[in-house]
Amino acid sequence: MMDNILEPWHVEALVERFLEEDIGRGDRTTEAVVPDDVRGRARIEAREAAVIAGVDVARLCFSLLGEVSWEPFVADGSRVEPGATIVRIEGPLRTILTGERTALNLLQRLSGIATMTRSYVDAVAGTPVDIVDTRKTTPGLRALEKYAVRVGGGSNHRAGLDDGILIKDNHIAAAGSVTEAVTRALADRPHGLKVEVEVQDLDQLDEALAAGAEAILLDNMSPDLVSAAVTRAGGKALLEASGGITLETVAEYAKTGVDLISVGALTHSVRAIDLSLEVD
Amino acid sequence: MMDNILEPWHVEALVERFLEEDIGRGDRTTEAVVPDDVRGRARIEAREAAVIAGVDVARLCFSLLGEVSWEPFVADGSRVEPGATIVRIEGPLRTILTGERTALNLLQRLSGIATMTRSYVDAVAGTPVDIVDTRKTTPGLRALEKYAVRVGGGSNHRAGLDDGILIKDNHIAAAGSVTEAVTRALADRPHGLKVEVEVQDLDQLDEALAAGAEAILLDNMSPDLVSAAVTRAGGKALLEASGGITLETVAEYAKTGVDLISVGALTHSVRAIDLSLEVD
Amino acid sequence: MMDNILEPWHVEALVERFLEEDIGRGDRTTEAVVPDDVRGRARIEAREAAVIAGVDVARLCFSLLGEVSWEPFVADGSRVEPGATIVRIEGPLRTILTGERTALNLLQRLSGIATMTRSYVDAVAGTPVDIVDTRKTTPGLRALEKYAVRVGGGSNHRAGLDDGILIKDNHIAAAGSVTEAVTRALADRPHGLKVEVEVQDLDQLDEALAAGAEAILLDNMSPDLVSAAVTRAGGKALLEASGGITLETVAEYAKTGVDLISVGALTHSVRAIDLSLEVD
Amino acid sequence: MMDNILEPWHVEALVERFLEEDIGRGDRTTEAVVPDDVRGRARIEAREAAVIAGVDVARLCFSLLGEVSWEPFVADGSRVEPGATIVRIEGPLRTILTGERTALNLLQRLSGIATMTRSYVDAVAGTPVDIVDTRKTTPGLRALEKYAVRVGGGSNHRAGLDDGILIKDNHIAAAGSVTEAVTRALADRPHGLKVEVEVQDLDQLDEALAAGAEAILLDNMSPDLVSAAVTRAGGKALLEASGGITLETVAEYAKTGVDLISVGALTHSVRAIDLSLEVD
Amino acid sequence: MMDNILEPWHVEALVERFLEEDIGRGDRTTEAVVPDDVRGRARIEAREAAVIAGVDVARLCFSLLGEVSWEPFVADGSRVEPGATIVRIEGPLRTILTGERTALNLLQRLSGIATMTRSYVDAVAGTPVDIVDTRKTTPGLRALEKYAVRVGGGSNHRAGLDDGILIKDNHIAAAGSVTEAVTRALADRPHGLKVEVEVQDLDQLDEALAAGAEAILLDNMSPDLVSAAVTRAGGKALLEASGGITLETVAEYAKTGVDLISVGALTHSVRAIDLSLEVD
Amino acid sequence: MMDNILEPWHVEALVERFLEEDIGRGDRTTEAVVPDDVRGRARIEAREAAVIAGVDVARLCFSLLGEVSWEPFVADGSRVEPGATIVRIEGPLRTILTGERTALNLLQRLSGIATMTRSYVDAVAGTPVDIVDTRKTTPGLRALEKYAVRVGGGSNHRAGLDDGILIKDNHIAAAGSVTEAVTRALADRPHGLKVEVEVQDLDQLDEALAAGAEAILLDNMSPDLVSAAVTRAGGKALLEASGGITLETVAEYAKTGVDLISVGALTHSVRAIDLSLEVD
Repeated sequence: MMDNILEPWHVEALVERFLEEDIGRGDRTTEAVVPDDVRGRARIEAREAAVIAGVDVARLCFSLLGEVSWEPFVADGSRVEPGATIVRIEGPLRTILTGERTALNLLQRLSGIATMTRSYVDAVAGTPVDIVDTRKTTPGLRALEKYAVRVGGGSNHRAGLDDGILIKDNHIAAAGSVTEAVTRALADRPHGLKVEVEVQDLDQLDEALAAGAEAILLDNMSPDLVSAAVTRAGGKALLEASGGITLETVAEYAKTGVDLISVGALTHSVRAIDLSLEVD
Repeated sequence: MMDNILEPWHVEALVERFLEEDIGRGDRTTEAVVPDDVRGRARIEAREAAVIAGVDVARLCFSLLGEVSWEPFVADGSRVEPGATIVRIEGPLRTILTGERTALNLLQRLSGIATMTRSYVDAVAGTPVDIVDTRKTTPGLRALEKYAVRVGGGSNHRAGLDDGILIKDNHIAAAGSVTEAVTRALADRPHGLKVEVEVQDLDQLDEALAAGAEAILLDNMSPDLVSAAVTRAGGKALLEASGGITLETVAEYAKTGVDLISVGALTHSVRAIDLSLEVD
Repeated sequence: MMDNILEPWHVEALVERFLEEDIGRGDRTTEAVVPDDVRGRARIEAREAAVIAGVDVARLCFSLLGEVSWEPFVADGSRVEPGATIVRIEGPLRTILTGERTALNLLQRLSGIATMTRSYVDAVAGTPVDIVDTRKTTPGLRALEKYAVRVGGGSNHRAGLDDGILIKDNHIAAAGSVTEAVTRALADRPHGLKVEVEVQDLDQLDEALAAGAEAILLDNMSPDLVSAAVTRAGGKALLEASGGITLETVAEYAKTGVDLISVGALTHSVRAIDLSLEVD
Repeated sequence: MMDNILEPWHVEALVERFLEEDIGRGDRTTEAVVPDDVRGRARIEAREAAVIAGVDVARLCFSLLGEVSWEPFVADGSRVEPGATIVRIEGPLRTILTGERTALNLLQRLSGIATMTRSYVDAVAGTPVDIVDTRKTTPGLRALEKYAVRVGGGSNHRAGLDDGILIKDNHIAAAGSVTEAVTRALADRPHGLKVEVEVQDLDQLDEALAAGAEAILLDNMSPDLVSAAVTRAGGKALLEASGGITLETVAEYAKTGVDLISVGALTHSVRAIDLSLEVD
Repeated sequence: MMDNILEPWHVEALVERFLEEDIGRGDRTTEAVVPDDVRGRARIEAREAAVIAGVDVARLCFSLLGEVSWEPFVADGSRVEPGATIVRIEGPLRTILTGERTALNLLQRLSGIATMTRSYVDAVAGTPVDIVDTRKTTPGLRALEKYAVRVGGGSNHRAGLDDGILIKDNHIAAAGSVTEAVTRALADRPHGLKVEVEVQDLDQLDEALAAGAEAILLDNMSPDLVSAAVTRAGGKALLEASGGITLETVAEYAKTGVDLISVGALTHSVRAIDLSLEVD
Repeated sequence: MMDNILEPWHVEALVERFLEEDIGRGDRTTEAVVPDDVRGRARIEAREAAVIAGVDVARLCFSLLGEVSWEPFVADGSRVEPGATIVRIEGPLRTILTGERTALNLLQRLSGIATMTRSYVDAVAGTPVDIVDTRKTTPGLRALEKYAVRVGGGSNHRAGLDDGILIKDNHIAAAGSVTEAVTRALADRPHGLKVEVEVQDLDQLDEALAAGAEAILLDNMSPDLVSAAVTRAGGKALLEASGGITLETVAEYAKTGVDLISVGALTHSVRAIDLSLEVD
């Protein structure tokens, strides 16, 4: 199973649920049209250039339904060209046809994420900045989507509300000030979690640094302002640029020396990669 | 709860799972920074024009965490302009901040689907054609996504492999011919399901009609070819145009007199609508 | 696993639940009386003539508890005589004794359904009519019971409320008329589902045909009335006779030329077939 | 909720599963034909004489789907005549129509069990014998079916393999003798469980009594043999007659002075009571 | 799997839940520090003398995460000295490190129970008394903890509220008297369960015996009083001493001739045995 | 519900599982002896001095079974003396008796943890050190046990393997050196997690500091060695003393100026506080 995502049984339970959603009480078409004992060979092929992610997840969509042999031609993270074969499958034709749609839905979506992430990562090549994701993922698919970000060369921000502290504008408003919010977080957090705080301008940045914030998210700042922030912080805290950064502007942000650039669009507005399953 | 999607407990169980995915063992930031007894008022507002879908689902993201009062300003299916308030929430500030991300992730995605669907439906206004979705949905979210398609004015194709017969090219290959595939399906299907078959050209169309197909999917045909198919079918079967139909070309397809136009992009490549939650 | 019922993990989860219901915290008798390392051989035998259904489900009742070898002597759908061996089992004696009751409860019930279905099917042999089941199944066992109907030579009506449209008297009352109800259903239904409507007399039949119903259930009509209906419909819709049809009267109904005869008693009042497990 | 069956959430979870089985992705007919805001009144009525069981379970089939008012006319255990109203329901018509089938399936089956149990209990009226059930219940419904036996005036045998010791012929064979089997069970059982053993003849009865069995099941013995066993046991152990006892023969068995008579047919071959739901 | 605890899938599901509790979204340390393809060898060793219980449960903590070879050096129930190797493990180092804590948490706790139980059992060696546990177990772990009691040589009291009758002071108060409470229980209980009642003094004991109680719990009585009770009961009911009995006093109680001595401390106040996992 | 532990439905699901474990198929004693309509009043009282934790969890053990009124006399974290009333309950007597054991098992255990934690916290009063827990919790109860540690005045270490980095000796061995292990972790970890590393001596401490570790666990060091480490670290990293620290030695460790002291015994060897439920 895919290394460092989830325990094996966890991904399996997820895929079982996805298969049930699609299959319901049975694949009426295949049952009626394809005899039980017919075997088939098929391949999944790319119809456009892409970075592939999710090959092992796709495999489960078939192997949970029947015994198939599975011969992958590319590993997760590989770039493929249009026409490339991603995997060859051999097994009961019913299994192949019934699992097809769920497998493609997952593989197309995860590859879409990996491909977009890769384009951001390539755009900042040569700089030490990390491209990171956000919590703007599809409900129910976060672990898989964050895996696809890593496959595309990105890094993961916190996985949820429990494995990272990120104080946002609404938290600051509730606490009264950046200083008070950061102070409360430093006092209360489990000691293994850093305190990160979102700031809107350089005054708030100064306040955050003075209060002891260990990471600071620069919200919706221009590259110039980010540069100024980097200078002002002087390495005393990790700096993350976030908000409205696109493939066109990301390189400019990277040049500022900021440590991290987070991009919600990696997961919230995914274009599925065009893949198809062809029975030989 | 949203009418005719799912039983109440089913949507609730789904949203609980989504909240658990995001919250994990607890919202460390909010616990540390926001006192337990602070109440807050917030509103979700649109930052771009959209057709809204998922207001009741978003509500669950808060009401499952605490007692909130919820005052919706628009109903599902409403068009809103940038700046419009969608809903006002009042309750424990912790509840509002902890539920925010999951609520927005769902509402932005479902509104994205409704908005795109509405643009297709508007593009064919004045014709009797139905815009329908496909099974290219996000695994785990099918019921919600198909609901959003209806909210946008579209119709639903089958919900899964069990509530509709659709014979595709791979099934035909397995059966040997369109005739054989349709014949097998007619013989075996539960009598309440129609037999639909996908055809690639007018010869296959003739074969499908002769075999008694009750609906026929015209795969990747040009508008001219679809027109010819409509003429040739003469009302003996429902006709569905599918494959590569875009917002630019959909009106031309609608004019052919085809009964249904299905569009995978309604759900497989969704752009999240830009919405935000603002605490007063 | 049994073809075209349910995905393998689904049946397995069902049988696990049934075993837990019976075993609870442990089989106290077997633990106390039968040493852990004793192996046994047993066979399940018929004590009356029957059509057998559920052999693979019965197997799971043992194989989920331990490693057993399983040698079936008959396949689902076979007719057996009193004394016939259905299967031979070999394995840990504890596994055999602990799984016995659940296995028999399932096998006896499913074989009861298959046997009764077969008697109805045989009674109409030589006519093209299909014997179909209803939704009057035992809660929790519908998939298995509908499988047993197929094993007995019957066909399945819709599996639930979502994979078929059937407008009943209460729906008609709510809509105001057969015409209105059928019209609404034709306008709203997913296009892959046929619209079937239940009628009480020939006037309603005419109304249903005129409104475009694609299948019509003739409720509690005499064979003569069904004959008249067949004539009047003239092949424009599928006709289903239903209501109070018994093994004594089914042949007479079949002769009317009706397409389908549905029988609730196939599943709602099942007599368990007498089977026993004998340890050698 | 029904007293002493199951915790409230347990029955609720069970009924939710049953509703999901029937409803699947939605009640397509009702959604299309019955507007969302129509309210209705209905009653469940008996079409034959019966002892009713399961009124509260039936209620859940509606109340889990919507808000209904529920006015029962009879309590579980009441005898009703044909035409009797069992309950009146008022609420959204969609809720009533969607929950109908599952509610009736449960109520008809449980009432069938209560009615049959009552006939056995009445047949032995005036004797101190208890009519008890067996583990020959429908998988998944044991708790409900054993409840229906109590409603009909019967008593429950053990609920599963863990809350009673019952040594059967196969256990005896494995242990080598009645004596050895009973001795092992006495040594190993949790001290709160009695040791019951099944015997085939009076010699085995003697052996069981000598070994200290606290209850003895007389398997497939004639009334005369049971009488002899009662005499021979002299009150030293509870005696249970079992095997092939019918409504015709049960009174004769009761006269022998045996303590318990167990009847598998109470639950393994249930005839559903004819009930119907009529919308006013 | 461990004989006579739970079905295999049940223990597996339990351990999966425990692993998920500890691992959450992934073992961040091991993922970062230990390459995916490194294999390791480790052993679990005792740091103090103990009776070991839970070896097979510990194994699942690794085998559910990856493929490991597992070589146990001692079986459950063995006494080990400090420094003794309990098991050797070989497999992916990541699997070993990620499963370690959950495995040790279980093994240390269960061995703690077995060790304490064994000390009680040894203290009464030479007498026929049984040392039994209570329902004062850790919520969620009862089956495993009661297994550990058996491993330590103890016997199990009832496993829950459903597989044994035990009338306590509050029940007696509700019924009005010992006599009334016992009478009600004898009339209503499933016939396979004995009626046990808790008494506070010899008068209540007499009442219990007269009412037909089959087992009697002597609550918080001195050894002398227990002796008197044994004499007075004269073998007419099982006698269980309970309440405040310690390792220091248990032998004295055993000498009274009482049948059972129950000790809540076996499970409610467990000291974890000091074990460690050492990677070679 | 208890603030900042778990979402409400999560604790509820946990307690439901615990109740099912104890109740199984029903509380046979209470059903037989206590009539359905008897109401009762009870109180939970302390039999020894303690810090109470888990009052809201205990409440669920009753409120999930029936409607009870619940009047707490102390809040979590309160110190009580022997004889103190913790809560008064009023409701159906059956509900009170059936929920009693599970409620007490939880309340006694959690109060045991809070009480022990409080004694450690009191022992270091006047110093700024934090007493923290470990992952040596009871499987299945971690969230509740860590909550009890907070109630007792302690702080929580990471909740699982995913919300904190802690490099232990086995990780270091796999990486080859402290330097290499820390370097890998700094490169790979999600940026919101600090890197903590366990060291055995001052040389490793130096290495850890040089490599950039943000927190350092001093494993099994004497107070003197810890003092030396504090001096050497000079505030460049958080320092945690761990390993064999007891109530007797904890004050001496606190005086060293170390930041955190972790104590496995807070949760791995809990003594249940003696509490009882008395029906009035």
